[in-house]
Amino acid sequence: MVRQGAIDNPPKVPFVMGFECAGEVEAIGEAVEDLKIGDRVIAVTDYRAWAESVCVPAQFVYKMPAGMTFQDGAAFFMNYVTAYVLLFEIGNLRPGQSVLVHSAGGGVGTALCQLCKTVENVTVFGTASTQKHEALKDKLDHLYDHGVDYSQEIRKISPDGVDVVLDCLCGEDTNKGISILKPLGRYVLFGSSNVVTGETKSFFSFAKSWWHVDKISPIKLYDENKIIAGFHLRELLFKQRRHDFVRRLVGTLFDLYTAGKIRPQIDSVWAFDDVILAMQRMHDRANVGKIVLDPSIESKQQETIHLNLTLVTLQCQAPSDADQSTNAPTAAPKTPRTT
Amino acid sequence: MVRQGAIDNPPKVPFVMGFECAGEVEAIGEAVEDLKIGDRVIAVTDYRAWAESVCVPAQFVYKMPAGMTFQDGAAFFMNYVTAYVLLFEIGNLRPGQSVLVHSAGGGVGTALCQLCKTVENVTVFGTASTQKHEALKDKLDHLYDHGVDYSQEIRKISPDGVDVVLDCLCGEDTNKGISILKPLGRYVLFGSSNVVTGETKSFFSFAKSWWHVDKISPIKLYDENKIIAGFHLRELLFKQRRHDFVRRLVGTLFDLYTAGKIRPQIDSVWAFDDVILAMQRMHDRANVGKIVLDPSIESKQQETIHLNLTLVTLQCQAPSDADQSTNAPTAAPKTPRTT
Repeated sequence: MVRQGAIDNPPKVPFVMGFECAGEVEAIGEAVEDLKIGDRVIAVTDYRAWAESVCVPAQFVYKMPAGMTFQDGAAFFMNYVTAYVLLFEIGNLRPGQSVLVHSAGGGVGTALCQLCKTVENVTVFGTASTQKHEALKDKLDHLYDHGVDYSQEIRKISPDGVDVVLDCLCGEDTNKGISILKPLGRYVLFGSSNVVTGETKSFFSFAKSWWHVDKISPIKLYDENKIIAGFHLRELLFKQRRHDFVRRLVGTLFDLYTAGKIRPQIDSVWAFDDVILAMQRMHDRANVGKIVLDPSIESKQQETIHLNLTLVTLQCQAPSDADQSTNAPTAAPKTPRTT
Repeated sequence: MVRQGAIDNPPKVPFVMGFECAGEVEAIGEAVEDLKIGDRVIAVTDYRAWAESVCVPAQFVYKMPAGMTFQDGAAFFMNYVTAYVLLFEIGNLRPGQSVLVHSAGGGVGTALCQLCKTVENVTVFGTASTQKHEALKDKLDHLYDHGVDYSQEIRKISPDGVDVVLDCLCGEDTNKGISILKPLGRYVLFGSSNVVTGETKSFFSFAKSWWHVDKISPIKLYDENKIIAGFHLRELLFKQRRHDFVRRLVGTLFDLYTAGKIRPQIDSVWAFDDVILAMQRMHDRANVGKIVLDPSIESKQQETIHLNLTLVTLQCQAPSDADQSTNAPTAAPKTPRTT
């Protein structure tokens, strides 16, 4: 979406894209206490992650658990934090309940399917492009092409509807999603920066289909016992500044990773030189899972342009937002970042 | 509200009011397996609870825990089930969070304050009529008259707002409640049959102020990371037929009662003859907690009209909705019921 300019207030061009990356800490600011040079970390940025070196305030840096690869780290944060909030903080998912996941082949969709398995006896309904069904068929219980009337199909299996609807499509799917909720069901409209790796067409429709979405009176929700919500991770992190909350979730998710219960699904890994090929794959909706850019690997193209991996100095900011001028420069080269 | 006719589709007059009662089982239907004559029970009805004997389908009957009085039983179900769903099923209340409770002196308000204490370090903000503040001051952290600009007062203490807003007032309070939510905050509009025992004026405004409530686009919730919901217990129980779900909650609440963590606040107990005085007390908003009618006690009026306590035979229906014609009659006399 960023690449296509299909977002509100896009940055002025030229700019560096990318919202998350993983690598080693090269330098830290003076006031930073919880990190040291050489730490293997995930970093979340408000753009500029597609680079050899990234400067990022310390409150957006998370030490990776032992055994996590940089590629897994680069594909972890946005998908899993989003999925965790949707299912457990808002969706309040309980054993025996049911979930509808749109774009089940996307990054968040894959994470949602894995996290659903951590709760006993959860039924997962999903939608995805038909070409992805073969790759996805073992990951959820009922899979539909988005073109079919999935709400009618779901009603055949579960006449009461579903407990949790997680909607990254918006538009007419919002109204459908709310109408298919069971009593006390939760509908959540969500997005995150990793939409660029996923179902681009669907998210593009987000911007276009604002007018399709019915406004709802809370009194209607009272009459029907329904819950509706919205979730936007980057808004939560960068504008609403809920760092501590997010850090707690990341800790929980790292534990699940270490226990082998969740694992980022990486579709493919590309050299920086091959970013155009990587984007094309996403644009063609050919990917199942995350596309990762890795500056340490060689280009697959015949005419490789060698990257200049000279370190770039950069500043880190303390969690307390201390005076940046006291911070020493830092850098994290040759590490993967996701599209 | 029922008494004032301020509800949708009121029953045709004359009819018997009352939605909940407690007493002994006098007779059971043939297909009823989990109850026996003499069991001390709470029963929930769709009207007709203000009577010496009540016939009720078995799925709306709950065996009281040992040690629960009939008066406590009659004041238990609507308040605590509503409060539990609001705080834990929808509100997803966590340690360290904050809650705003309107009509804190009402039946649900009192139950909410008690249930909040079962979670560590929860801050409770409340509104109530000034004359109730003395009786309530130890039950919550910050109490305001509803006439003051409570949202401004709350912002002075908690600039970010509150995590959970539980709104039985509706109208302009709905818009205020949604605007005072923290990121990921939950707003719930609710009602339950026990509104007749509580802040009648406030609930009356519910019907009148429909047009005050702004409709909300899910996209706005996405932009702001907010959750809005509605909850209506009688709808859930009698129309949406979520008996099993409610029965599980009642079990949890009975455990909390037995552990001494929750206890219905009973404002006063009245003979059936004194129902007019009981109603007047409620109408004057003089009660703090539940008003109970008890056919076993003597009238406080000088000219007592003695009640005829002859047993009335009545039918019970099996949970499986088996043929009612097979059910034997049953009755539960001389037991309290709430207004």
